[in-house]
Amino acid sequence: MSYDLWYWPGLPGRGEFVRLALEAAGLPYRDRGVEEGAEALLDDMEEGERPPFAPPYLCVEGQRIAQVANILHWLTERHDLAPVAERTWLNQLQLTISDMVAEVHNVHHPVAMMAYYHEQKPEAARAAAQFRSERIPKFLGYFERALGDRQWMAGERWSPVDTSLFQLVAGLRYMFPARMAAVEGDYPRLIALHDRVRTLPGIAAYLDSERRQAFNEDGIFRHYPELDAA
Amino acid sequence: MSYDLWYWPGLPGRGEFVRLALEAAGLPYRDRGVEEGAEALLDDMEEGERPPFAPPYLCVEGQRIAQVANILHWLTERHDLAPVAERTWLNQLQLTISDMVAEVHNVHHPVAMMAYYHEQKPEAARAAAQFRSERIPKFLGYFERALGDRQWMAGERWSPVDTSLFQLVAGLRYMFPARMAAVEGDYPRLIALHDRVRTLPGIAAYLDSERRQAFNEDGIFRHYPELDAA
Repeated sequence: MSYDLWYWPGLPGRGEFVRLALEAAGLPYRDRGVEEGAEALLDDMEEGERPPFAPPYLCVEGQRIAQVANILHWLTERHDLAPVAERTWLNQLQLTISDMVAEVHNVHHPVAMMAYYHEQKPEAARAAAQFRSERIPKFLGYFERALGDRQWMAGERWSPVDTSLFQLVAGLRYMFPARMAAVEGDYPRLIALHDRVRTLPGIAAYLDSERRQAFNEDGIFRHYPELDAA
Repeated sequence: MSYDLWYWPGLPGRGEFVRLALEAAGLPYRDRGVEEGAEALLDDMEEGERPPFAPPYLCVEGQRIAQVANILHWLTERHDLAPVAERTWLNQLQLTISDMVAEVHNVHHPVAMMAYYHEQKPEAARAAAQFRSERIPKFLGYFERALGDRQWMAGERWSPVDTSLFQLVAGLRYMFPARMAAVEGDYPRLIALHDRVRTLPGIAAYLDSERRQAFNEDGIFRHYPELDAA
């Protein structure tokens, strides 16, 4: 069995949180948006009942499952990717990651989500200042505390929250290299978790493959030097 | 058994999505933040392991469950608030409601979530213009289509997605009365669903009670006349 994943081609974006879980779990999938392009994605989204509001979504047995946290929770239940007793807690953390990702996007699109960054640069500069000074420490400090002294967020084994935190740290480093260099020392367990995820066999192989897409300025995590500072 | 709900006192906010589900289901709860105040809430949040990132959260059997969609999914499973086969779809819709609620908050706090509205009024005016013209039709059109010709989103009986859509429509009407009056006719099924939720016995009794808090300018849905237009 293989999953069909649909997401915008040309950027890692929110689809990457799903790809990383599939890759770490060794679950085969076709990356349909990458293979077939944005028009095919738009056509597929419009088809049938119960459309997704937005990609990414996973097609399985005639059902389309959208929203990153919903997809990851579904995969966790289907493939036992975390202990049953931990799943509500993990879903809560995944939703907090989603909240931070939405705020990351808001930094470069604070007043007009449907327009371009260059149309809202002064506003983005204001949004970035507060995000760097207040939101990065608040979220990363929270995840650091939530992890405690465990190897993985769920305890003994990796779960999709761990691969998502890997991507969050990687994305923030790309977007805010100066700020992250200045604050990373405050979150040693979270950084160690990021490094541990890199060594998972499925993730190590994925990161070395052509399937892994680089961050770029069409995605969620965008490096605009004028928005970064220590 | 009774639940303890913790949320900021003085505003309906995100806590209201949880209250409405509890009230519709007839599940007893104590509204601890309302009863004991913001300092008691902050103290409670800091206690113990696995803290929530933010309210609302529900305390049950020593566990604290946070994030609106996570709480509602947990309540749905515990109290059979929706058919099993519909729960992934409902969670997906609930997360789309959460996305819209986050965008609603972003309208009045586009560049500085931790500062005041009056410190970002020009930016809020820009954010509101696009939200009114593009995001309201996109989200409400989506929910209208998702509902189809069913009575309730899950089919034969109400679920927390329905009470959440009730609150979403009510909040948008409070925040954007001119804009909503202009577009509501395009979403007859969604408006009919809103009206149907009002007649659920638990909801009708709640709306008549002192427990129901009015929208105000400390909440998520805020009426600033300068941000509204048809």
